[in-house]
Amino acid sequence: MKIIRTITEMQQQMQTLKAEGNSIGFVPTMGFLHEGHISLMKKARQDNEIVVLSIFVNPLQFGPAEDLDAYPRDFDRDHRIAEMEGVDYIFYPTAEEMYPKNASLKVSVIERTNVLCGKSRPGHFDGVATVLIKLFNIVQPARAYFGLKDAQQVAVIEGLVADFNFPIELISLEIVREEDGLAKSSRNVYLNKQERKQAPELFKSLLLAKAALESGERSSARLIEIIKKHINDNTAGVVDYIEIYSYPELQSLEKVTGRMIIALAVKFSKARLIDNIILDVEKL
Amino acid sequence: MKIIRTITEMQQQMQTLKAEGNSIGFVPTMGFLHEGHISLMKKARQDNEIVVLSIFVNPLQFGPAEDLDAYPRDFDRDHRIAEMEGVDYIFYPTAEEMYPKNASLKVSVIERTNVLCGKSRPGHFDGVATVLIKLFNIVQPARAYFGLKDAQQVAVIEGLVADFNFPIELISLEIVREEDGLAKSSRNVYLNKQERKQAPELFKSLLLAKAALESGERSSARLIEIIKKHINDNTAGVVDYIEIYSYPELQSLEKVTGRMIIALAVKFSKARLIDNIILDVEKL
Repeated sequence: MKIIRTITEMQQQMQTLKAEGNSIGFVPTMGFLHEGHISLMKKARQDNEIVVLSIFVNPLQFGPAEDLDAYPRDFDRDHRIAEMEGVDYIFYPTAEEMYPKNASLKVSVIERTNVLCGKSRPGHFDGVATVLIKLFNIVQPARAYFGLKDAQQVAVIEGLVADFNFPIELISLEIVREEDGLAKSSRNVYLNKQERKQAPELFKSLLLAKAALESGERSSARLIEIIKKHINDNTAGVVDYIEIYSYPELQSLEKVTGRMIIALAVKFSKARLIDNIILDVEKL
Repeated sequence: MKIIRTITEMQQQMQTLKAEGNSIGFVPTMGFLHEGHISLMKKARQDNEIVVLSIFVNPLQFGPAEDLDAYPRDFDRDHRIAEMEGVDYIFYPTAEEMYPKNASLKVSVIERTNVLCGKSRPGHFDGVATVLIKLFNIVQPARAYFGLKDAQQVAVIEGLVADFNFPIELISLEIVREEDGLAKSSRNVYLNKQERKQAPELFKSLLLAKAALESGERSSARLIEIIKKHINDNTAGVVDYIEIYSYPELQSLEKVTGRMIIALAVKFSKARLIDNIILDVEKL
């Protein structure tokens, strides 16, 4: 496994590999790898000749109220995990390497942002889109891998790839869950014992909505009510949002139809958990 | 020579050619090819295994006051010229193919635009940048070719490639001139006989400024004065602008230094002509 820190070297290596006919699978991350990332690396390893992992805590996607310096980092541990998963290259640039001077262009994500978690993070997805345009051009992958835990991010990236015609296949992987259904997250450790017991009810509430859909329910308002009631009745968490949209367009739906997402965020005493399911109503 | 009209087919062809180790040279145009374009195609033919010409009148770079439908088109003639110049592929998409639906992203060029011709064309370079991001991802060239007649456009594209790390070498070619020094342009036919006689004085005025630079003049204001006086004394044209900037940053320079551009636009009765020279003051 090779660690590369400069854009020029990365581009040269990738172009040589591509000219030799290799397909490149790319897993972009901010490091501090967890089981979600590992599932992406495993899939990339299956699908491609070459696997590239990037580790870059992107300052552009942090808001003024968000603490860039406090973001957890552990390169040695990430390095060991990547080696274990058969990664071929880690791209690990500095912020100065990625953003050397005042840019002359600005990218704005004008759709799919003002809902779900994006509502409270203005500019966040502009930063995500900017760094991914750069990383896609640096790594030049045939396939890029993202987890559906952050389904809104995946929706924005689908827009990015479609709008700009990146010759990249996006592979989005299902949420990795604990045996009891709780979506895996580094934040789960902040739950107290009772909250940890209650937390699987979030996913159960989504499955209740799915069951209602299968029984013919099509009203977004009533689906949301089912989820809300279940969470309020079975947890001490406070609902931040429960929302239903078309996916990946993230347009409001009074009556659900086609491919859609049900997403929620719930606050516990020291952790805010998110979860979602994506369904095609026509294929239930 | 092959004509391709869909993005998917173009991307597949290009990826196959690249995986076989071919380098792709790309000449993006809006068609109605002239000698400037031909010099770009000839250079691309020398440098690369594969030459791609795109012909696309990009609606996004036309302002509300600019007439998209009146833009001249002659595909049959373009086709013959491309064939003669040894082009391998013409990418010739429709506007619907390039802009299928409401985009979820927007690109803004925030530097290098509010000077020279860009001042009077708000949004123009946003459209140029957007279409080039798409075309670069569709054609995936090793080298892209642009003429320095529109030096501001080249400056914006240099910013685009640098900001977004496109793995593309930009090749910018000198202005093609008539024997008497007049920059070639399809607009020259709109000059009357007397104006055509006077028009070479524009380039001569730039050469006078160059001579003054070589004699040690460093004041932008005095260089501009030399040019202005020469044009006013020797032509019936009305100066639209004469401007001096660093290049490609297009920052104002009171005293010239480093790489810089002197650019001008002059209105004759039925044609507005532009011309420029780019110099490195340190290398005079």
